[in-house]
Amino acid sequence: MSTIDTKLADLGIVLPEPAAPVANYAPYIIVGNLIYISGQVSIGPDGLITGKLGRDLDVDQGVQAAHACGVNLVAQLKTACDGDLDRVTRVIKLGGFVNCTEDFYDHPKVINGSSDLMVAVFGDIGRHARAAVGSPSLPMNAAVEVDGIFEIK
Amino acid sequence: MSTIDTKLADLGIVLPEPAAPVANYAPYIIVGNLIYISGQVSIGPDGLITGKLGRDLDVDQGVQAAHACGVNLVAQLKTACDGDLDRVTRVIKLGGFVNCTEDFYDHPKVINGSSDLMVAVFGDIGRHARAAVGSPSLPMNAAVEVDGIFEIK
Amino acid sequence: MSTIDTKLADLGIVLPEPAAPVANYAPYIIVGNLIYISGQVSIGPDGLITGKLGRDLDVDQGVQAAHACGVNLVAQLKTACDGDLDRVTRVIKLGGFVNCTEDFYDHPKVINGSSDLMVAVFGDIGRHARAAVGSPSLPMNAAVEVDGIFEIK
Repeated sequence: MSTIDTKLADLGIVLPEPAAPVANYAPYIIVGNLIYISGQVSIGPDGLITGKLGRDLDVDQGVQAAHACGVNLVAQLKTACDGDLDRVTRVIKLGGFVNCTEDFYDHPKVINGSSDLMVAVFGDIGRHARAAVGSPSLPMNAAVEVDGIFEIK
Repeated sequence: MSTIDTKLADLGIVLPEPAAPVANYAPYIIVGNLIYISGQVSIGPDGLITGKLGRDLDVDQGVQAAHACGVNLVAQLKTACDGDLDRVTRVIKLGGFVNCTEDFYDHPKVINGSSDLMVAVFGDIGRHARAAVGSPSLPMNAAVEVDGIFEIK
Repeated sequence: MSTIDTKLADLGIVLPEPAAPVANYAPYIIVGNLIYISGQVSIGPDGLITGKLGRDLDVDQGVQAAHACGVNLVAQLKTACDGDLDRVTRVIKLGGFVNCTEDFYDHPKVINGSSDLMVAVFGDIGRHARAAVGSPSLPMNAAVEVDGIFEIK
């Protein structure tokens, strides 16, 4: 097992089969040493986590949804790395979109569900630039969507 | 005619004059072999396609709006490539924003209007990473806005 | 003083201490000659500029909020450049998110507050690709959030 696979096992994280895109786009694109991963919605072990922060879901549930997005990003990343996550040298940027009401202000706490996962899995190279913003709605009523840019060797 | 110009003609797509930015920004920036193109709104042959998905426009109209955004991206790209779209080696990433209500869930179907265009025009290298999210409103009430990152040789 | 520091002084812009991230992410990531800066919210000299465009704030106030985001981006950039802003060779891309109502259409005018600042400070290399979209809400009810990608030597 690679170092990162061992870390995932220690954390009790089982990577899902990465979701196939449902249209004319790709789950990820590799250009030079950068990997651009498509927006991953909050599909967890029990299916899609849906609903709006500030109305249907509390912050803790939002954190779980963002955690699920992060796990899905790592699953795509593993495929992009031909199965070897030890090739990852840096999590560069996460773009976090929170399905929320117009009076919801805790986007950063929600997106921490993705950010904390990256640092738990990758350590210091898991620290990344990010944006956390609101959306009035997301695909299939997903609670959270996160895309990402990663560097590999 | 370049290969891609021929393909555009076969598809019946006439590239517009690329829209000039209305402020202190640029329609595109070239850095190394990457081109970052500014968000293109849904201006089609008959003018700006406006309105909100889930209220004013149906999904098919949204697809047409996203198609228009894609055509505008290609028009900017052609200028960035000094007129030679055969220099494009990869559509890397599209960021799709849908002007929609809070109970609209079909962002992916809408943004397919841009994604399908890229693959129709560029073939396999047209497949790209993407994000598709909602916005409560967009500039000038545009129905869709899409920005993009492309690789050229 | 560097050329850009002199320009900032001429413009009467005092860079704040760059805001520390409040979670497991970084204010910026350097990868090769690119710097990705995390979304900066509209914190000005008098604190966070809050509220929704189209309801609580007018366009001029939105411009001021976007200007504040731009100043915060430059403050982070200066730290990323070890204090020497003359190393900046290009402002590549700004991603502007406006906290607004569903009938607000002037996102470009608002985000000009960031764009104009970049050109005022960096001149021609300050011109950049950008996207300007709406959000139903932003962190801590910030009026504007802007992230950025910059090139340095």
